[in-house]
Amino acid sequence: MKAFHHSLIVSTRGKGTYEITEQIQEIVRKSKVQTGMATIFIRHTSASLVIYENADFTARKDLHSYFERLVSEDDPYLVHVLEGPDDSTSHLRGALTRTGETIPVTEGRLTLGTWQGVFVFEHRKAAHDRTVDIAVLGI
Amino acid sequence: MKAFHHSLIVSTRGKGTYEITEQIQEIVRKSKVQTGMATIFIRHTSASLVIYENADFTARKDLHSYFERLVSEDDPYLVHVLEGPDDSTSHLRGALTRTGETIPVTEGRLTLGTWQGVFVFEHRKAAHDRTVDIAVLGI
Amino acid sequence: MKAFHHSLIVSTRGKGTYEITEQIQEIVRKSKVQTGMATIFIRHTSASLVIYENADFTARKDLHSYFERLVSEDDPYLVHVLEGPDDSTSHLRGALTRTGETIPVTEGRLTLGTWQGVFVFEHRKAAHDRTVDIAVLGI
Repeated sequence: MKAFHHSLIVSTRGKGTYEITEQIQEIVRKSKVQTGMATIFIRHTSASLVIYENADFTARKDLHSYFERLVSEDDPYLVHVLEGPDDSTSHLRGALTRTGETIPVTEGRLTLGTWQGVFVFEHRKAAHDRTVDIAVLGI
Repeated sequence: MKAFHHSLIVSTRGKGTYEITEQIQEIVRKSKVQTGMATIFIRHTSASLVIYENADFTARKDLHSYFERLVSEDDPYLVHVLEGPDDSTSHLRGALTRTGETIPVTEGRLTLGTWQGVFVFEHRKAAHDRTVDIAVLGI
Repeated sequence: MKAFHHSLIVSTRGKGTYEITEQIQEIVRKSKVQTGMATIFIRHTSASLVIYENADFTARKDLHSYFERLVSEDDPYLVHVLEGPDDSTSHLRGALTRTGETIPVTEGRLTLGTWQGVFVFEHRKAAHDRTVDIAVLGI
């Protein structure tokens, strides 16, 4: 049985989605796990993870604009705005998407579908270095 | 240590929720894992997973109608609609629910609560064959 | 390889978030797993889990008020209200957050970021005893 751990730094350049699928497949390859599972986890509360369509960029454009509306920075009821209007909204957008994703591994690869990519979803306007932990377990 | 993998095909007949709890319990049983965890993962971006009340159907009726409102097909701001008005909305509804679920296994069974069922949440109007991967790890 | 399982009872006192980070770190320590992953799973459909900022309470105050608005108890279209106006809304709020969270373990600890806490998110007005299962796998 193998247990492998690796951390990635993902540099974001403001709000949006940043694909990390290939980096994670490479970490799974290095783990030498053939059958098992991989957990991807972001160590932050103002950026999150999402598995989304990675073929047509307009899909992600809608994701970005939808979240601008669903959790609006203009809403006057938010009180946790010490770091700006994108402070509480970032945490809320994270709660509505995911902090971690766990994906089966078979034949040494994540069992992602044809159109599935793994993305860091940055919710802050400013650039950030985000730490993403990957754990791979299996045989 | 055991590492088991199995794929299910779930045939959906349009929008709604389709319970797969018993199929997954059966896969866990076949894995012979007594203590560990199971990951259920859907290989699609226009259908998702949700763990929901499985006793009274009106609970799921509210789930369906709530998502029709939360991510409306009538919103004019969505641009990724090449495959119809249920294209981008399907991805968004998936992002708001889950692509994967991981559940502890004890005594050879998922530790689901009395009223918890695992469901495929189909977001497209048309019927689809959905692939769901299950990985079981443990001793 | 180690496979460890433990159940927690979390007593909630009505709607809100209840931190369980330290209890889970303690369970991970008891598991003696150094490298691997931990799955936290709540056996209920009217309470859920969320990883959220645990430093400044105003962040969680916004989380609570945001969900009161996003899934309102005043909406007349909900039909699953046998147990009161917080019945269907509890399930919906659970679907929008998480039933389970999986977190990598390294050096015998969850790889949580500085500001990340694990919380039970209670959606019912009444006090409840909630069962949370933790599975830890690794070496």
